[in-house]
Amino acid sequence: MPTFSYSRTIHFPDTDAAGVIFFARYLSIAHEAYEEALADVGIPLGQFFSDQGVILPIAKSEASYLRPLVCGDRVRIDVTPTRFSDNTFTVDYVLWKLSPTEKRAAVMRTEHVCLDSSSRARLALPAELAAWVDA
Amino acid sequence: MPTFSYSRTIHFPDTDAAGVIFFARYLSIAHEAYEEALADVGIPLGQFFSDQGVILPIAKSEASYLRPLVCGDRVRIDVTPTRFSDNTFTVDYVLWKLSPTEKRAAVMRTEHVCLDSSSRARLALPAELAAWVDA
Amino acid sequence: MPTFSYSRTIHFPDTDAAGVIFFARYLSIAHEAYEEALADVGIPLGQFFSDQGVILPIAKSEASYLRPLVCGDRVRIDVTPTRFSDNTFTVDYVLWKLSPTEKRAAVMRTEHVCLDSSSRARLALPAELAAWVDA
Amino acid sequence: MPTFSYSRTIHFPDTDAAGVIFFARYLSIAHEAYEEALADVGIPLGQFFSDQGVILPIAKSEASYLRPLVCGDRVRIDVTPTRFSDNTFTVDYVLWKLSPTEKRAAVMRTEHVCLDSSSRARLALPAELAAWVDA
Repeated sequence: MPTFSYSRTIHFPDTDAAGVIFFARYLSIAHEAYEEALADVGIPLGQFFSDQGVILPIAKSEASYLRPLVCGDRVRIDVTPTRFSDNTFTVDYVLWKLSPTEKRAAVMRTEHVCLDSSSRARLALPAELAAWVDA
Repeated sequence: MPTFSYSRTIHFPDTDAAGVIFFARYLSIAHEAYEEALADVGIPLGQFFSDQGVILPIAKSEASYLRPLVCGDRVRIDVTPTRFSDNTFTVDYVLWKLSPTEKRAAVMRTEHVCLDSSSRARLALPAELAAWVDA
Repeated sequence: MPTFSYSRTIHFPDTDAAGVIFFARYLSIAHEAYEEALADVGIPLGQFFSDQGVILPIAKSEASYLRPLVCGDRVRIDVTPTRFSDNTFTVDYVLWKLSPTEKRAAVMRTEHVCLDSSSRARLALPAELAAWVDA
Repeated sequence: MPTFSYSRTIHFPDTDAAGVIFFARYLSIAHEAYEEALADVGIPLGQFFSDQGVILPIAKSEASYLRPLVCGDRVRIDVTPTRFSDNTFTVDYVLWKLSPTEKRAAVMRTEHVCLDSSSRARLALPAELAAWVDA
Protein backbone atom coordinates (compact mmCIF):
# COMPACT_ATOMS: atom_id res chain seq x y z
CA MET A 1 0.00 0.00 0.00
CA PRO A 2 2.16 2.85 -1.29
CA THR A 3 1.26 6.38 -0.18
CA PHE A 4 1.65 9.29 -2.58
CA SER A 5 1.47 12.93 -1.47
CA TYR A 6 0.13 15.86 -3.49
CA SER A 7 0.26 19.49 -2.36
CA ARG A 8 -2.07 22.26 -3.40
CA THR A 9 -3.25 25.73 -2.47
CA ILE A 10 -6.96 26.38 -1.93
CA HIS A 11 -8.10 28.87 -4.56
CA PHE A 12 -10.99 31.28 -4.78
CA PRO A 13 -12.95 29.15 -7.28
CA ASP A 14 -12.88 26.34 -4.66
CA THR A 15 -14.82 28.46 -2.15
CA ASP A 16 -18.50 29.25 -1.69
CA ALA A 17 -20.56 32.04 -0.12
CA ALA A 18 -19.98 30.66 3.38
CA GLY A 19 -16.39 31.85 2.88
CA VAL A 20 -14.86 28.38 2.92
CA ILE A 21 -14.28 25.52 0.49
CA PHE A 22 -17.48 23.94 -0.88
CA PHE A 23 -17.85 20.36 0.39
CA ALA A 24 -17.90 18.69 -3.03
CA ARG A 25 -14.62 20.43 -3.89
CA TYR A 26 -12.79 18.31 -1.30
CA LEU A 27 -13.65 15.34 -3.52
CA SER A 28 -12.48 17.13 -6.66
CA ILE A 29 -9.19 17.84 -4.95
CA ALA A 30 -8.98 14.19 -3.87
CA HIS A 31 -9.39 13.26 -7.54
CA GLU A 32 -6.56 15.60 -8.50
CA ALA A 33 -4.37 13.79 -5.97
CA TYR A 34 -5.39 10.43 -7.45
CA GLU A 35 -4.45 11.70 -10.92
CA GLU A 36 -1.07 12.89 -9.70
CA ALA A 37 -0.45 9.51 -8.02
CA LEU A 38 -1.16 7.76 -11.33
CA ALA A 39 1.03 10.19 -13.27
CA ASP A 40 3.80 9.54 -10.74
CA VAL A 41 3.92 5.84 -11.69
CA GLY A 42 3.95 6.71 -15.39
CA ILE A 43 0.29 6.27 -16.34
CA PRO A 44 -0.57 8.74 -19.15
CA LEU A 45 -3.58 10.67 -17.83
CA GLY A 46 -4.86 11.96 -21.16
CA GLN A 47 -5.54 8.42 -22.32
CA PHE A 48 -6.36 6.91 -18.94
CA PHE A 49 -9.31 9.20 -18.27
CA SER A 50 -10.78 9.16 -21.76
CA ASP A 51 -12.88 6.22 -22.85
CA GLN A 52 -10.54 3.71 -24.53
CA GLY A 53 -12.83 0.71 -24.10
CA VAL A 54 -11.92 0.19 -20.46
CA ILE A 55 -13.29 2.64 -17.89
CA LEU A 56 -12.78 2.95 -14.12
CA PRO A 57 -15.76 4.89 -12.79
CA ILE A 58 -16.14 5.77 -9.14
CA ALA A 59 -18.96 3.62 -7.75
CA LYS A 60 -18.97 5.06 -4.23
CA SER A 61 -17.48 7.90 -2.25
CA GLU A 62 -17.52 8.83 1.40
CA ALA A 63 -16.03 11.81 3.15
CA SER A 64 -15.68 13.33 6.60
CA TYR A 65 -15.10 17.07 6.51
CA LEU A 66 -13.22 17.93 9.69
CA ARG A 67 -12.05 21.51 9.26
CA PRO A 68 -13.01 24.43 7.02
CA LEU A 69 -10.43 25.71 4.54
CA VAL A 70 -10.14 29.23 3.15
CA CYS A 71 -8.61 30.76 0.04
CA GLY A 72 -4.83 30.67 0.37
CA ASP A 73 -4.67 27.66 2.71
CA ARG A 74 -1.95 25.22 1.79
CA VAL A 75 -2.93 21.53 1.91
CA ARG A 76 -1.34 18.13 1.36
CA ILE A 77 -3.31 15.07 0.31
CA ASP A 78 -1.96 11.58 1.11
CA VAL A 79 -3.29 8.97 -1.33
CA THR A 80 -3.31 5.21 -0.62
CA PRO A 81 -4.85 2.61 -2.94
CA THR A 82 -6.09 -0.79 -1.73
CA ARG A 83 -7.06 -3.81 -3.81
CA PHE A 84 -10.67 -4.81 -3.10
CA SER A 85 -11.36 -7.56 -5.69
CA ASP A 86 -10.25 -8.63 -9.16
CA ASN A 87 -12.05 -5.71 -10.71
CA THR A 88 -12.39 -3.15 -7.90
CA PHE A 89 -10.13 -1.07 -5.68
CA THR A 90 -10.48 1.72 -3.16
CA VAL A 91 -8.44 4.87 -2.71
CA ASP A 92 -8.07 6.50 0.71
CA TYR A 93 -7.25 10.17 1.08
CA VAL A 94 -6.18 12.19 4.10
CA LEU A 95 -6.26 15.92 3.41
CA TRP A 96 -3.98 17.89 5.74
CA LYS A 97 -4.17 21.61 6.42
CA LEU A 98 -0.48 22.48 6.68
CA SER A 99 -0.44 25.61 8.84
CA PRO A 100 -0.28 26.99 11.48
CA THR A 101 0.13 23.38 12.65
CA GLU A 102 -0.56 20.30 10.55
CA LYS A 103 -4.09 19.04 11.11
CA ARG A 104 -6.43 16.71 9.26
CA ALA A 105 -9.07 18.69 7.35
CA ALA A 106 -10.81 15.79 5.59
CA VAL A 107 -10.72 12.01 5.29
CA MET A 108 -12.16 10.51 2.11
CA ARG A 109 -12.51 7.24 0.25
CA THR A 110 -13.45 6.46 -3.34
CA GLU A 111 -14.34 3.00 -4.66
CA HIS A 112 -13.51 2.27 -8.29
CA VAL A 113 -14.73 -0.49 -10.57
CA CYS A 114 -13.18 -1.58 -13.87
CA LEU A 115 -15.70 -1.94 -16.69
CA ASP A 116 -15.91 -2.60 -20.40
CA SER A 117 -17.29 0.73 -21.58
CA SER A 118 -19.64 -0.84 -24.17
CA SER A 119 -21.08 -3.83 -22.34
CA ARG A 120 -20.45 -2.47 -18.83
CA ALA A 121 -19.22 -5.97 -17.89
CA ARG A 122 -16.62 -6.05 -15.12
CA LEU A 123 -13.01 -6.43 -16.24
CA ALA A 124 -9.75 -7.18 -14.44
CA LEU A 125 -7.71 -4.06 -13.64
CA PRO A 126 -5.30 -3.01 -16.41
CA ALA A 127 -1.74 -4.18 -15.63
CA GLU A 128 -0.25 -0.73 -15.08
CA LEU A 129 -3.01 0.20 -12.64
CA ALA A 130 -2.85 -3.17 -10.85
CA ALA A 131 0.89 -2.60 -10.38
CA TRP A 132 0.13 0.65 -8.53
CA VAL A 133 -2.74 -0.77 -6.46
CA ASP A 134 -0.85 -3.92 -5.46
CA ALA A 135 2.56 -2.34 -4.86
CA MET B 1 -40.10 13.02 6.92
CA PRO B 2 -41.34 15.15 4.04
CA THR B 3 -39.93 14.46 0.59
CA PHE B 4 -39.29 17.31 -1.83
CA SER B 5 -38.54 16.80 -5.52
CA TYR B 6 -36.31 18.94 -7.71
CA SER B 7 -35.85 18.46 -11.45
CA ARG B 8 -32.85 19.43 -13.51
CA THR B 9 -31.15 18.83 -16.83
CA ILE B 10 -27.53 17.63 -16.91
CA HIS B 11 -25.46 20.32 -18.59
CA PHE B 12 -22.13 20.33 -20.37
CA PRO B 13 -20.27 21.98 -17.47
CA ASP B 14 -21.36 19.02 -15.30
CA THR B 15 -19.50 16.54 -17.49
CA ASP B 16 -15.88 15.46 -17.71
CA ALA B 17 -13.58 13.97 -20.34
CA ALA B 18 -15.03 10.49 -19.81
CA GLY B 19 -18.14 11.90 -21.49
CA VAL B 20 -20.36 11.63 -18.43
CA ILE B 21 -21.10 13.65 -15.29
CA PHE B 22 -18.10 14.05 -12.93
CA PHE B 23 -18.72 12.15 -9.67
CA ALA B 24 -18.42 15.17 -7.36
CA ARG B 25 -21.06 16.97 -9.45
CA TYR B 26 -23.72 14.52 -8.24
CA LEU B 27 -23.13 16.00 -4.78
CA SER B 28 -23.32 19.57 -6.09
CA ILE B 29 -26.65 18.71 -7.69
CA ALA B 30 -27.80 17.13 -4.42
CA HIS B 31 -26.96 20.44 -2.72
CA GLU B 32 -29.03 22.34 -5.29
CA ALA B 33 -31.96 20.06 -4.44
CA TYR B 34 -31.42 20.74 -0.71
CA GLU B 35 -31.47 24.49 -1.42
CA GLU B 36 -34.67 24.20 -3.40
CA ALA B 37 -36.27 22.18 -0.59
CA LEU B 38 -35.38 24.94 1.89
CA ALA B 39 -36.65 27.66 -0.44
CA ASP B 40 -39.88 25.69 -0.81
CA VAL B 41 -40.58 26.05 2.93
CA GLY B 42 -39.80 29.77 2.82
CA ILE B 43 -36.21 29.83 4.05
CA PRO B 44 -34.37 32.76 2.37
CA LEU B 45 -31.31 31.17 0.78
CA GLY B 46 -29.21 34.31 0.40
CA GLN B 47 -29.10 34.72 4.19
CA PHE B 48 -29.22 31.05 5.12
CA PHE B 49 -26.02 30.17 3.30
CA SER B 50 -24.00 33.21 4.29
CA ASP B 51 -22.41 33.34 7.71
CA GLN B 52 -24.91 35.04 10.05
CA GLY B 53 -23.40 33.66 13.28
CA VAL B 54 -25.02 30.25 12.87
CA ILE B 55 -23.63 27.89 10.24
CA LEU B 56 -24.70 24.42 9.10
CA PRO B 57 -21.67 22.82 7.49
CA ILE B 58 -21.75 19.36 5.98
CA ALA B 59 -19.73 17.07 8.28
CA LYS B 60 -20.02 13.91 6.20
CA SER B 61 -21.21 12.77 2.80
CA GLU B 62 -21.62 9.40 1.18
CA ALA B 63 -22.75 8.50 -2.29
CA SER B 64 -23.35 5.49 -4.51
CA TYR B 65 -23.11 6.31 -8.20
CA LEU B 66 -25.30 3.78 -9.99
CA ARG B 67 -25.60 5.01 -13.56
CA PRO B 68 -23.67 7.43 -15.76
CA LEU B 69 -25.46 10.57 -16.96
CA VAL B 70 -24.75 12.52 -20.13
CA CYS B 71 -25.37 16.09 -21.25
CA GLY B 72 -29.08 16.56 -21.89
CA ASP B 73 -30.27 13.84 -19.49
CA ARG B 74 -33.25 14.91 -17.42
CA VAL B 75 -33.08 13.99 -13.71
CA ARG B 76 -35.23 14.32 -10.59
CA ILE B 77 -33.79 14.42 -7.10
CA ASP B 78 -35.96 13.38 -4.13
CA VAL B 79 -34.80 15.03 -0.90
CA THR B 80 -35.71 13.73 2.58
CA PRO B 81 -34.36 15.24 5.83
CA THR B 82 -34.09 13.27 9.08
CA ARG B 83 -33.43 14.56 12.59
CA PHE B 84 -30.30 12.98 14.06
CA SER B 85 -29.76 14.88 17.33
CA ASP B 86 -30.45 18.31 18.85
CA ASN B 87 -27.83 19.87 16.63
CA THR B 88 -27.45 17.50 13.69
CA PHE B 89 -29.57 16.18 10.84
CA THR B 90 -29.09 14.12 7.72
CA VAL B 91 -30.47 14.62 4.23
CA ASP B 92 -31.07 11.67 1.91
CA TYR B 93 -31.16 12.07 -1.85
CA VAL B 94 -32.29 9.72 -4.57
CA LEU B 95 -31.31 10.95 -8.02
CA TRP B 96 -33.50 9.51 -10.76
CA LYS B 97 -32.66 9.40 -14.46
CA LEU B 98 -36.07 10.06 -16.00
CA SER B 99 -35.84 8.49 -19.44
CA PRO B 100 -36.15 6.22 -21.33
CA THR B 101 -37.52 4.60 -18.16
CA GLU B 102 -37.14 5.97 -14.64
CA LYS B 103 -34.10 4.49 -12.93
CA ARG B 104 -32.01 5.40 -9.89
CA ALA B 105 -28.72 7.02 -10.98
CA ALA B 106 -27.36 7.87 -7.53
CA VAL B 107 -28.18 7.57 -3.84
CA MET B 108 -26.55 10.09 -1.52
CA ARG B 109 -26.57 11.29 2.08
CA THR B 110 -25.21 14.44 3.70
CA GLU B 111 -24.84 14.96 7.45
CA HIS B 112 -25.17 18.52 8.74
CA VAL B 113 -24.18 20.02 12.07
CA CYS B 114 -25.33 23.35 13.50
CA LEU B 115 -22.49 25.49 14.85
CA ASP B 116 -21.79 28.91 16.25
CA SER B 117 -19.56 30.31 13.52
CA SER B 118 -17.19 32.06 15.95
CA SER B 119 -16.74 29.51 18.72
CA ARG B 120 -17.67 26.47 16.59
CA ALA B 121 -19.73 25.26 19.57
CA ARG B 122 -22.74 23.12 18.64
CA LEU B 123 -26.09 24.88 18.60
CA ALA B 124 -29.69 23.72 18.39
CA LEU B 125 -31.14 23.88 14.87
CA PRO B 126 -32.76 27.23 13.99
CA ALA B 127 -36.54 27.03 14.35
CA GLU B 128 -37.37 27.37 10.64
CA LEU B 129 -34.93 24.59 9.74
CA ALA B 130 -36.12 22.37 12.62
CA ALA B 131 -39.67 22.78 11.32
CA TRP B 132 -38.58 21.36 7.95
CA VAL B 133 -36.47 18.54 9.42
CA ASP B 134 -39.13 17.45 11.93
CA ALA B 135 -42.16 17.87 9.67
CA MET C 1 -32.04 36.12 -35.25
CA PRO C 2 -34.31 34.11 -32.97
CA THR C 3 -34.08 34.74 -29.22
CA PHE C 4 -34.50 31.87 -26.79
CA SER C 5 -34.95 32.37 -23.05
CA TYR C 6 -33.73 30.11 -20.27
CA SER C 7 -34.49 30.60 -16.58
CA ARG C 8 -32.42 29.43 -13.66
CA THR C 9 -31.88 29.94 -9.95
CA ILE C 10 -28.41 30.85 -8.66
CA HIS C 11 -27.22 28.03 -6.42
CA PHE C 12 -24.66 27.80 -3.65
CA PRO C 13 -22.07 25.97 -5.79
CA ASP C 14 -22.17 28.98 -8.17
CA THR C 15 -20.95 31.35 -5.45
CA ASP C 16 -17.52 32.15 -4.03
CA ALA C 17 -16.11 33.47 -0.76
CA ALA C 18 -17.04 37.05 -1.70
CA GLY C 19 -20.64 35.90 -1.17
CA VAL C 20 -21.67 36.32 -4.80
CA ILE C 21 -21.50 34.33 -8.03
CA PHE C 22 -17.95 33.66 -9.27
CA PHE C 23 -17.31 35.56 -12.52
CA ALA C 24 -16.52 32.50 -14.66
CA ARG C 25 -19.81 30.91 -13.56
CA TYR C 26 -21.72 33.55 -15.55
CA LEU C 27 -20.15 31.99 -18.64
CA SER C 28 -21.04 28.46 -17.51
CA ILE C 29 -24.63 29.60 -17.08
CA ALA C 30 -24.52 31.21 -20.54
CA HIS C 31 -23.42 27.84 -21.91
CA GLU C 32 -26.35 26.12 -20.19
CA ALA C 33 -28.65 28.60 -21.94
CA TYR C 34 -26.97 27.85 -25.29
CA GLU C 35 -27.53 24.12 -24.68
CA GLU C 36 -31.19 24.69 -23.87
CA ALA C 37 -31.60 26.78 -27.01
CA LEU C 38 -30.17 23.94 -29.10
CA ALA C 39 -32.34 21.34 -27.33
CA ASP C 40 -35.34 23.56 -28.04
CA VAL C 41 -34.82 23.21 -31.81
CA GLY C 42 -34.41 19.45 -31.47
CA ILE C 43 -30.61 19.09 -31.48
CA PRO C 44 -29.65 16.04 -29.35
CA LEU C 45 -27.17 17.42 -26.80
CA GLY C 46 -25.56 14.12 -25.81
CA GLN C 47 -24.26 13.66 -29.34
CA PHE C 48 -23.78 17.32 -30.21
CA PHE C 49 -21.29 18.00 -27.42
CA SER C 50 -19.31 14.79 -27.72
CA ASP C 51 -16.70 14.50 -30.43
CA GLN C 52 -18.38 12.95 -33.50
CA GLY C 53 -15.81 14.16 -36.02
CA VAL C 54 -17.19 17.69 -36.14
CA ILE C 55 -16.58 19.97 -33.16
CA LEU C 56 -17.70 23.53 -32.41
CA PRO C 57 -15.27 24.91 -29.85
CA ILE C 58 -15.58 28.39 -28.42
CA ALA C 59 -12.77 30.48 -29.89
CA LYS C 60 -13.47 33.69 -27.97
CA SER C 61 -15.61 34.95 -25.14
CA GLU C 62 -16.27 38.36 -23.72
CA ALA C 63 -18.40 39.40 -20.78
CA SER C 64 -19.47 42.48 -18.84
CA TYR C 65 -20.51 41.68 -15.28
CA LEU C 66 -22.97 44.39 -14.28
CA ARG C 67 -24.52 43.24 -11.01
CA PRO C 68 -23.61 40.71 -8.33
CA LEU C 69 -25.93 37.73 -7.85
CA VAL C 70 -26.45 35.77 -4.65
CA CYS C 71 -27.68 32.29 -3.82
CA GLY C 72 -31.42 32.11 -4.46
CA ASP C 73 -31.53 34.87 -7.10
CA ARG C 74 -33.74 34.00 -10.03
CA VAL C 75 -32.30 34.88 -13.47
CA ARG C 76 -33.33 34.69 -17.12
CA ILE C 77 -30.82 34.41 -19.96
CA ASP C 78 -31.81 35.57 -23.45
CA VAL C 79 -29.79 33.80 -26.15
CA THR C 80 -29.40 35.11 -29.70
CA PRO C 81 -27.17 33.47 -32.36
CA THR C 82 -25.70 35.36 -35.30
CA ARG C 83 -24.02 33.97 -38.41
CA PHE C 84 -20.48 35.30 -38.74
CA SER C 85 -19.04 33.32 -41.68
CA ASP C 86 -19.44 29.93 -43.40
CA ASN C 87 -17.82 28.18 -40.47
CA THR C 88 -18.26 30.58 -37.54
CA PHE C 89 -21.10 32.10 -35.54
CA THR C 90 -21.52 34.15 -32.40
CA VAL C 91 -24.01 33.81 -29.57
CA ASP C 92 -25.11 36.83 -27.54
CA TYR C 93 -26.44 36.47 -24.01
CA VAL C 94 -28.23 38.96 -21.79
CA LEU C 95 -28.54 37.68 -18.23
CA TRP C 96 -31.39 39.35 -16.32
CA LYS C 97 -31.81 39.42 -12.55
CA LEU C 98 -35.58 39.05 -12.24
CA SER C 99 -36.35 40.64 -8.88
CA PRO C 100 -37.07 42.97 -7.18
CA THR C 101 -37.20 44.66 -10.61
CA GLU C 102 -35.81 43.18 -13.81
CA LYS C 103 -32.26 44.42 -14.41
CA ARG C 104 -29.37 43.30 -16.59
CA ALA C 105 -26.76 41.45 -14.51
CA ALA C 106 -24.42 40.45 -17.34
CA VAL C 107 -23.96 40.76 -21.09
CA MET C 108 -21.84 38.10 -22.78
CA ARG C 109 -20.76 36.85 -26.20
CA THR C 110 -19.20 33.59 -27.34
CA GLU C 111 -17.67 32.99 -30.77
CA HIS C 112 -17.82 29.46 -32.13
CA VAL C 113 -15.91 27.84 -34.96
CA CYS C 114 -16.77 24.60 -36.74
CA LEU C 115 -13.81 22.22 -37.11
CA ASP C 116 -12.96 18.72 -38.24
CA SER C 117 -11.85 17.21 -34.94
CA SER C 118 -8.95 15.25 -36.47
CA SER C 119 -7.43 17.72 -38.92
CA ARG C 120 -8.78 20.85 -37.18
CA ALA C 121 -9.64 22.17 -40.66
CA ARG C 122 -12.61 24.55 -40.76
CA LEU C 123 -15.92 23.05 -41.84
CA ALA C 124 -19.30 24.49 -42.82
CA LEU C 125 -21.82 24.49 -39.96
CA PRO C 126 -23.90 21.29 -39.69
CA ALA C 127 -27.36 21.76 -41.27
CA GLU C 128 -29.36 21.55 -38.04
CA LEU C 129 -27.15 24.15 -36.37
CA ALA C 130 -27.15 26.41 -39.44
CA ALA C 131 -30.96 26.28 -39.38
CA TRP C 132 -30.92 27.67 -35.82
CA VAL C 133 -28.26 30.29 -36.48
CA ASP C 134 -29.85 31.55 -39.71
CA ALA C 135 -33.49 31.42 -38.57
CA MET D 1 4.45 46.09 -15.33
CA PRO D 2 5.83 43.09 -13.47
CA THR D 3 5.07 39.63 -14.85
CA PHE D 4 4.44 36.74 -12.49
CA SER D 5 4.33 33.11 -13.65
CA TYR D 6 2.20 30.33 -12.22
CA SER D 7 2.40 26.68 -13.30
CA ARG D 8 -0.33 24.11 -13.09
CA THR D 9 -1.41 20.73 -14.42
CA ILE D 10 -4.78 20.35 -16.17
CA HIS D 11 -6.91 17.99 -14.08
CA PHE D 12 -9.90 15.81 -14.87
CA PRO D 13 -12.40 18.14 -13.11
CA ASP D 14 -11.25 20.90 -15.54
CA THR D 15 -12.42 18.91 -18.56
CA ASP D 16 -15.79 18.38 -20.20
CA ALA D 17 -17.44 15.75 -22.39
CA ALA D 18 -15.64 17.03 -25.50
CA GLY D 19 -12.51 15.58 -23.86
CA VAL D 20 -10.80 18.93 -23.37
CA ILE D 21 -10.81 21.75 -20.83
CA PHE D 22 -14.16 23.59 -20.56
CA PHE D 23 -13.83 27.17 -21.86
CA ALA D 24 -14.86 28.89 -18.61
CA ARG D 25 -12.20 26.89 -16.73
CA TYR D 26 -9.47 28.83 -18.55
CA LEU D 27 -10.76 31.91 -16.70
CA SER D 28 -10.84 30.06 -13.36
CA ILE D 29 -7.22 29.08 -13.93
CA ALA D 30 -6.40 32.70 -14.83
CA HIS D 31 -7.92 33.71 -11.49
CA GLU D 32 -5.75 31.16 -9.67
CA ALA D 33 -2.72 32.77 -11.31
CA TYR D 34 -3.91 36.23 -10.21
CA GLU D 35 -4.26 34.92 -6.64
CA GLU D 36 -0.76 33.46 -6.71
CA ALA D 37 0.63 36.75 -8.04
CA LEU D 38 -0.99 38.61 -5.12
CA ALA D 39 0.26 36.04 -2.59
CA ASP D 40 3.73 36.43 -4.08
CA VAL D 41 3.81 40.13 -3.08
CA GLY D 42 2.58 39.29 0.42
CA ILE D 43 -1.15 40.02 0.10
CA PRO D 44 -3.07 37.65 2.44
CA LEU D 45 -5.62 35.95 0.18
CA GLY D 46 -8.03 34.79 2.89
CA GLN D 47 -8.77 38.40 3.80
CA PHE D 48 -8.32 39.93 0.37
CA PHE D 49 -11.06 37.86 -1.26
CA SER D 50 -13.57 38.05 1.56
CA ASP D 51 -15.68 41.15 1.91
CA GLN D 52 -13.83 43.51 4.29
CA GLY D 53 -15.63 46.69 3.19
CA VAL D 54 -13.53 47.08 0.04
CA ILE D 55 -14.17 44.70 -2.86
CA LEU D 56 -12.49 44.31 -6.25
CA PRO D 57 -14.98 42.59 -8.52
CA ILE D 58 -14.21 41.71 -12.10
CA ALA D 59 -16.22 44.04 -14.31
CA LYS D 60 -15.22 42.56 -17.67
CA SER D 61 -13.39 39.61 -19.08
CA GLU D 62 -12.28 38.63 -22.54
CA ALA D 63 -10.53 35.52 -23.74
CA SER D 64 -9.20 33.92 -26.91
CA TYR D 65 -8.98 30.15 -26.68
CA LEU D 66 -6.23 29.10 -29.06
CA ARG D 67 -5.53 25.44 -28.33
CA PRO D 68 -7.39 22.63 -26.57
CA LEU D 69 -5.88 21.21 -23.40
CA VAL D 70 -6.34 17.70 -22.04
CA CYS D 71 -6.02 16.08 -18.64
CA GLY D 72 -2.35 15.87 -17.69
CA ASP D 73 -1.21 18.83 -19.82
CA ARG D 74 1.25 21.07 -18.02
CA VAL D 75 0.64 24.82 -18.42
CA ARG D 76 2.22 28.11 -17.33
CA ILE D 77 0.24 31.33 -16.95
CA ASP D 78 2.05 34.67 -17.20
CA VAL D 79 0.20 37.42 -15.31
CA THR D 80 0.70 41.13 -15.92
CA PRO D 81 -1.31 43.90 -14.19
CA THR D 82 -1.81 47.36 -15.70
CA ARG D 83 -3.18 50.49 -14.03
CA PHE D 84 -6.26 51.77 -15.86
CA SER D 85 -7.56 54.58 -13.62
CA ASP D 86 -7.57 55.60 -9.93
CA ASN D 87 -10.02 52.82 -9.12
CA THR D 88 -9.60 50.28 -11.93
CA PHE D 89 -6.89 48.02 -13.30
CA THR D 90 -6.61 45.23 -15.84
CA VAL D 91 -4.77 41.93 -15.63
CA ASP D 92 -3.43 40.22 -18.77
CA TYR D 93 -2.84 36.49 -18.88
CA VAL D 94 -1.00 34.37 -21.41
CA LEU D 95 -1.59 30.66 -20.83
CA TRP D 96 1.18 28.50 -22.33
CA LYS D 97 0.94 24.80 -23.08
CA LEU D 98 4.44 23.64 -22.12
CA SER D 99 4.93 20.50 -24.19
CA PRO D 100 5.84 19.06 -26.64
CA THR D 101 6.89 22.62 -27.57
CA GLU D 102 5.81 25.77 -25.76
CA LYS D 103 2.75 27.28 -27.44
CA ARG D 104 0.12 29.82 -26.43
CA ALA D 105 -3.15 28.05 -25.51
CA ALA D 106 -5.13 31.11 -24.39
CA VAL D 107 -4.85 34.88 -24.04
CA MET D 108 -7.14 36.52 -21.49
CA ARG D 109 -7.84 39.85 -19.82
CA THR D 110 -9.83 40.74 -16.70
CA GLU D 111 -10.84 44.27 -15.71
CA HIS D 112 -11.18 44.99 -12.00
CA VAL D 113 -12.87 47.86 -10.20
CA CYS D 114 -12.41 48.87 -6.57
CA LEU D 115 -15.68 49.45 -4.72
CA ASP D 116 -17.04 50.18 -1.27
CA SER D 117 -18.99 46.97 -0.66
CA SER D 118 -21.93 48.73 1.04
CA SER D 119 -22.46 51.80 -1.14
CA ARG D 120 -20.81 50.35 -4.25
CA ALA D 121 -19.08 53.74 -4.69
CA ARG D 122 -15.72 53.58 -6.46
CA LEU D 123 -12.66 53.71 -4.22
CA ALA D 124 -8.93 54.18 -4.83
CA LEU D 125 -7.00 50.90 -4.96
CA PRO D 126 -5.71 49.70 -1.56
CA ALA D 127 -2.03 50.58 -1.12
CA GLU D 128 -0.71 47.02 -1.19
CA LEU D 129 -2.59 46.28 -4.42
CA ALA D 130 -1.58 49.60 -5.99
CA ALA D 131 2.05 48.74 -5.21
CA TRP D 132 1.68 45.52 -7.26
CA VAL D 133 -0.22 47.13 -10.13
CA ASP D 134 2.13 50.12 -10.43
CA ALA D 135 5.41 48.25 -9.88
